[in-house]
Amino acid sequence: MPVKLSAPITTALLPVKGVKLGFAKAHVRKPDRKDVLVITLPVGSAVAGVFTQNRFCAAPVILCKTHLAETAGIRALLVNTGCANAGTGEEGIKRAKQSCDALSMLLDIASNQVLPFSTGVILEPLPVDKVIAGMPVAIENLNEDNWLNAAEAIMTTDIVPKGTSRQIQLAGKTVTITGISKGSGMIHPNMATMLGYIATDAAVSQSALEVIIQYAVKKSFNCITVDGDTSTNDSLMMMATNLTGNTEVAIGSDDFIVLRNALTDVAIELAQAIVRDGEGATKFMTVTVESGKDETECRKVAYAIAHSPLIKTAFFASDPNLGRILAAIGYAGIDDLDVDKLDLYLGNVLVAEKGGRAASYIEEQGAAIMKESDILVRVVLNRGNDNITIWTCDFSYDYVKINADYRS
Amino acid sequence: MPVKLSAPITTALLPVKGVKLGFAKAHVRKPDRKDVLVITLPVGSAVAGVFTQNRFCAAPVILCKTHLAETAGIRALLVNTGCANAGTGEEGIKRAKQSCDALSMLLDIASNQVLPFSTGVILEPLPVDKVIAGMPVAIENLNEDNWLNAAEAIMTTDIVPKGTSRQIQLAGKTVTITGISKGSGMIHPNMATMLGYIATDAAVSQSALEVIIQYAVKKSFNCITVDGDTSTNDSLMMMATNLTGNTEVAIGSDDFIVLRNALTDVAIELAQAIVRDGEGATKFMTVTVESGKDETECRKVAYAIAHSPLIKTAFFASDPNLGRILAAIGYAGIDDLDVDKLDLYLGNVLVAEKGGRAASYIEEQGAAIMKESDILVRVVLNRGNDNITIWTCDFSYDYVKINADYRS
Repeated sequence: MPVKLSAPITTALLPVKGVKLGFAKAHVRKPDRKDVLVITLPVGSAVAGVFTQNRFCAAPVILCKTHLAETAGIRALLVNTGCANAGTGEEGIKRAKQSCDALSMLLDIASNQVLPFSTGVILEPLPVDKVIAGMPVAIENLNEDNWLNAAEAIMTTDIVPKGTSRQIQLAGKTVTITGISKGSGMIHPNMATMLGYIATDAAVSQSALEVIIQYAVKKSFNCITVDGDTSTNDSLMMMATNLTGNTEVAIGSDDFIVLRNALTDVAIELAQAIVRDGEGATKFMTVTVESGKDETECRKVAYAIAHSPLIKTAFFASDPNLGRILAAIGYAGIDDLDVDKLDLYLGNVLVAEKGGRAASYIEEQGAAIMKESDILVRVVLNRGNDNITIWTCDFSYDYVKINADYRS
Repeated sequence: MPVKLSAPITTALLPVKGVKLGFAKAHVRKPDRKDVLVITLPVGSAVAGVFTQNRFCAAPVILCKTHLAETAGIRALLVNTGCANAGTGEEGIKRAKQSCDALSMLLDIASNQVLPFSTGVILEPLPVDKVIAGMPVAIENLNEDNWLNAAEAIMTTDIVPKGTSRQIQLAGKTVTITGISKGSGMIHPNMATMLGYIATDAAVSQSALEVIIQYAVKKSFNCITVDGDTSTNDSLMMMATNLTGNTEVAIGSDDFIVLRNALTDVAIELAQAIVRDGEGATKFMTVTVESGKDETECRKVAYAIAHSPLIKTAFFASDPNLGRILAAIGYAGIDDLDVDKLDLYLGNVLVAEKGGRAASYIEEQGAAIMKESDILVRVVLNRGNDNITIWTCDFSYDYVKINADYRS
């Protein structure tokens, strides 16, 4: 079961003025599950995206980038699960384009006003006819109140739908932000999430939204990992419908900071939800690396810890086998690291100081903290002023089971 | 069970003239197992070593390097399992030194003629009194025929002892090479093995042996990975006792090539044995990356595949979910990779060509190969002339079980 992940979902997902969502059970891979999602946006919406750095990026990712470059008038998003349409070459591009053509005709917009997204098995052809056949049903039930259905429609190995909402005040106007995400395995920064969609009804300039999404990604989806595998299809979208009646938010204004921070909070909650629902996860681990020379080396240390199967299995077993953390710090790739300066904390317990076991440390302290479901690992490098915090989960029998069984 | 690993061990491990091995059950961590090993070498032996690149290298590794730098007259090696003596600070160095002092007095040699090695749990103090108490028994049973006992004495989570022998002719003289290794988890290049000891009775100059060990490591232990964790204690030693009566082998001679290749063969067999006995392994995977621009990028691609938990669990399940391999190639970190040029083979079956699913590929072909216990993954980048081959294993329930239970 996901680690402490009931809370965000029992909170109602608030409608965002102008954003309509519709879904269908199109049998893309499995029967009787929501697997096609259509999102429509009003004229005048700003849309910004961040996509996977994987060189094998999927056909829909390529097409999304093209459409975003071609037009500022994105009016619809189309998502299917069950098939990633990745590793599918020219034919994959053709089918992604076909799906955009079909939706654009049904909605009476241009084909490049549609952004396509796919998630699921790689290296298999997209059953585009099934996706297209699902569109009329999805369009039929387009509705502003469909966020929870939408969160369910984009799930693959996710156990729970993931979403959250916020309301903030911008110059006396109430602005709503709602976001959903999916992802559970093949999770690693650059971008980390498989798919994320965050919408607000605030008026924001296109350039401000692009600055905000880069800021938010860096603090959220690029700070999580489940298994170190970067997906071919990762995409995060931010949409602003401009229907609240606030003055358009421009870069650098006070409202910009308020809106940026609220959107970033939503992104962090969605990113953390992916880790809490990480495949087989039983523990949620926060890894903080402090006082490094720069952010890059802090990241290296944090990810060496977060990716180590030995550490992740020890956390699964609630075993304070903390020497494995020192070993990971040692091979993180900082050539001039002076291990004799380094301190390691588990929660608030000092485990190692100056590179060796702390004199005050007794194993019972470590064992008590390891029993918790949310655990902080804190490394103090004592060689600079930069910090980083990332989030990951443990590595259990169920991770193996889920990924051994995924296609069966 | 290890993957096809009965063969090397049923082969008798041949004595190497002048190399004596003795063992004891010293109760370092667990009762009733061989956990202390002493190896003695005759005067005039050449000894070379390669050690972990982990910044948190263990106290014995630090001391080994010091002793090798101080003297060309190494006469004894001391190994204990059960405790790695890593992450133990100044006290760890002191205890490693104490153990060398004790053995040197018993053998009537200088303390810096002893090389110490430890393997086991990190961040716990070495019970040096137990190690010292075991020495008289180990010295009592010093014998040239003890290689199999020695291989058993250095095991931790290993299921089987690992060793192999070769005989070659150097200018009419029969030269014997015997090696043993241990390691099963926390296995990743730089150096990869936890511990390896390879001895020959050939006469080899110190400088020639140092060139050979670097060559051999690059082709063997630095080409394997189980879980991507680089140990704090990795050490490979090569020893030559100079008792065969051959002319001393010097760098660049014909005999040098013959001896180098034979020692490298032994190193490769020992390295592969570690993977075959990888924690929880059910499949042995050979990953070959061909026609890359340089060796570095071939290595990046090979290790991205070999480290991916998603690929390793799919292999465990015999599931030809081969899109995961394309995804790993895509995130391997080659920024200018043209995925449209790339071919992927599973065994001799073409799975993907020019970056997409091969028209000729049918899933039954992939499924048939996935049922084998030894599987070749072959990536052809079609962008240069460099190649690399590495070895790894799959990721099973038992990996999680072994590492969740390791200290209990």
